Amino acid sequence: MAQPTLLTFNAGSSTIKLGLFAMDGTTPHRFGKGMVDLRREPLMLHVTEGAEKADIPLDAKAAEDLDEVVAETLEVLATQFRHDAIAAAGHRIVHGGDRFRGPAPINDETLHAIEALVPLAPLHQPQGLRLIRSLRRLRPDIPQTASFDTAFHQTQSDAMRRLPLPREWFDRGVKRYGFHGLSYCFIARELARVAPELAARKVVVAHLGSGASLCAIEKGASRATSMTFSTLDGIVMATRPGALDPGVIIHLAKGGLPIEEIEAMLYHRSGLLGLSGISADARDLAASDAPEAREALDHFARTIAGMTASLGAALEGLDVLVFTAGIGEHQPALRADVCRRLGFLGIFVDEERNSRNAQRIDAASSRVAVFVIPTDEEQVIAEEAASLLSAAD
Amino acid sequence: MAQPTLLTFNAGSSTIKLGLFAMDGTTPHRFGKGMVDLRREPLMLHVTEGAEKADIPLDAKAAEDLDEVVAETLEVLATQFRHDAIAAAGHRIVHGGDRFRGPAPINDETLHAIEALVPLAPLHQPQGLRLIRSLRRLRPDIPQTASFDTAFHQTQSDAMRRLPLPREWFDRGVKRYGFHGLSYCFIARELARVAPELAARKVVVAHLGSGASLCAIEKGASRATSMTFSTLDGIVMATRPGALDPGVIIHLAKGGLPIEEIEAMLYHRSGLLGLSGISADARDLAASDAPEAREALDHFARTIAGMTASLGAALEGLDVLVFTAGIGEHQPALRADVCRRLGFLGIFVDEERNSRNAQRIDAASSRVAVFVIPTDEEQVIAEEAASLLSAAD
Repeated sequence: MAQPTLLTFNAGSSTIKLGLFAMDGTTPHRFGKGMVDLRREPLMLHVTEGAEKADIPLDAKAAEDLDEVVAETLEVLATQFRHDAIAAAGHRIVHGGDRFRGPAPINDETLHAIEALVPLAPLHQPQGLRLIRSLRRLRPDIPQTASFDTAFHQTQSDAMRRLPLPREWFDRGVKRYGFHGLSYCFIARELARVAPELAARKVVVAHLGSGASLCAIEKGASRATSMTFSTLDGIVMATRPGALDPGVIIHLAKGGLPIEEIEAMLYHRSGLLGLSGISADARDLAASDAPEAREALDHFARTIAGMTASLGAALEGLDVLVFTAGIGEHQPALRADVCRRLGFLGIFVDEERNSRNAQRIDAASSRVAVFVIPTDEEQVIAEEAASLLSAAD
Repeated sequence: MAQPTLLTFNAGSSTIKLGLFAMDGTTPHRFGKGMVDLRREPLMLHVTEGAEKADIPLDAKAAEDLDEVVAETLEVLATQFRHDAIAAAGHRIVHGGDRFRGPAPINDETLHAIEALVPLAPLHQPQGLRLIRSLRRLRPDIPQTASFDTAFHQTQSDAMRRLPLPREWFDRGVKRYGFHGLSYCFIARELARVAPELAARKVVVAHLGSGASLCAIEKGASRATSMTFSTLDGIVMATRPGALDPGVIIHLAKGGLPIEEIEAMLYHRSGLLGLSGISADARDLAASDAPEAREALDHFARTIAGMTASLGAALEGLDVLVFTAGIGEHQPALRADVCRRLGFLGIFVDEERNSRNAQRIDAASSRVAVFVIPTDEEQVIAEEAASLLSAAD
């Protein structure tokens, strides 16, 4: 029996990440990946298969629709990888609103529902939609599925999801959704695998990438998050501020700054970039001697530590802290700084284990178990797609 | 030698609180107080002197300037209280910006500087200014002083005061100021008096009135606060939301809600009032059987507990928790709820002592000392005024 290939798409605001999975029985396993950076023309498809890497130039241009890019990418994948026909494509979609409590097959109705959620995630939702539409036009024979960053948080109570605004806004969709749910879903499962004795305990996961949030998890279910309504909320991020005094936005708007400019500033020029004036990349800041770089990283660590403590209060306890995503997995100094601030919660890190990004990094004296677990959103997308397809068979 | 009287004014958005102090040596002590509620016509001056209370109707109307109200109030005070001539008047002013690091005598220059700060506190600053101007017109012979809610927080580092926005905004005044500083100043001193052995430790003070904030204090100095740029930030309040996802405001503004309506909603219809749909008053909510009332109080307690833990992270430890202001001093159930959520920080409350609002309420098992200390902003205003006047002599 041939092993059909399952393709995953993870669209960021400026990149498209691809995953190639073999549908080997019930669990898809990855055999290749790719990435297109839409900010750099001419476009290049970076592919990896095992130890092999290749950078393949594309003729396609990044346009309003992604038909050219998707068409050429499919051609390259077909020649580059020794794989069978693409059996299905799974997409990461940032916002599922309250409509999607789990993954969904793409059809006219679900596509329309995903489009209707664009106003709730105007900067993130459209790119995933473009990919779905292009693939539908080019390869209507390939079944597609969507996996939602918000779905994992649907376990939160309505009381937790209500924002401190007049009640009618809740009914009009202005409420806590939470994001990075595919990552939290993966980490919750992975924690249950590597430390089953801790999986039902009070866990805070710090997903620290260029977008960053924290999630309080108990018995494997999301109980609270640092992000609420939009991807701007919570802790300081690469270019986003996290939670902000609403009075600041009112002050800027009444001072004459158009709301679109405020929005662009908050999405693209705030956070670590704004604080440092140097770079949005925590690696650049760690390598810099400038006091502004140190200040930005201090601020970052302070908000992560503060949010960890705050989510501990939401759980009324803290047994496990997990670091994940680019920065969480690869920057020991940042992890050490966060944990040093949290000694009063009984969090202590083993320096040597932390320095080599070991899976478990808490010191013997620590009351809280501390893990570094690489996340894999594409694995969750692929499994959700496989599960929907087998249910549809 | 006659004991001159010092008058203090504490202008809220809708009330004027008065304090009458005898300048007895170096420390002013209060012998009377008054309050005018500007929301209720005809106006009434409620006065208290020792055990005596009186409600005195005023002919004055609340107008754009407060000349009539101030003039009639001075007349009533002169007949009502057996006091000597008013030697000085001290005012609470919400915003001192970076210009005022401590109290200041009112003169043309300082008055102008206080007026220039109106854009930073458009709802709170004007009322204090109106009182100063009226008193200047009516009684130019009385020296006046201003005490600032922001001044106590000037000990915070620039790094702590920087918001995660492009750096130029810091230079343009968009930064953390912090408020309720007169209350925190009083509590820090009072803690040093009642528990001198704890005064230099890591202290979080929860000032819970209809406006509410928390302050992290170490060695008597402010290190961090829940309020940053405006009085909207931090924890849920009677009608204000506290920290809010900036994406919510962008969503509402792009949806066509004028910024002035958003501002009015955030100042007057959010917080406990918005969450409950019932009342802005935590006492009403505690007395209500409605699930929405319970939900609003849960939310309130959760944000206080979360902020306490977060400020503990800012201090890298927590030794003392102090509750103060109307709700903090008088609602044992709320205090118990907050502390129950913080058991993981080693905070435990003695139920019996808590139920009677005892000064110290931690249980023997508590690692953190927990206090209930009534605040007295007017005492600080009076002392700052007395100190400025004696320096000017």
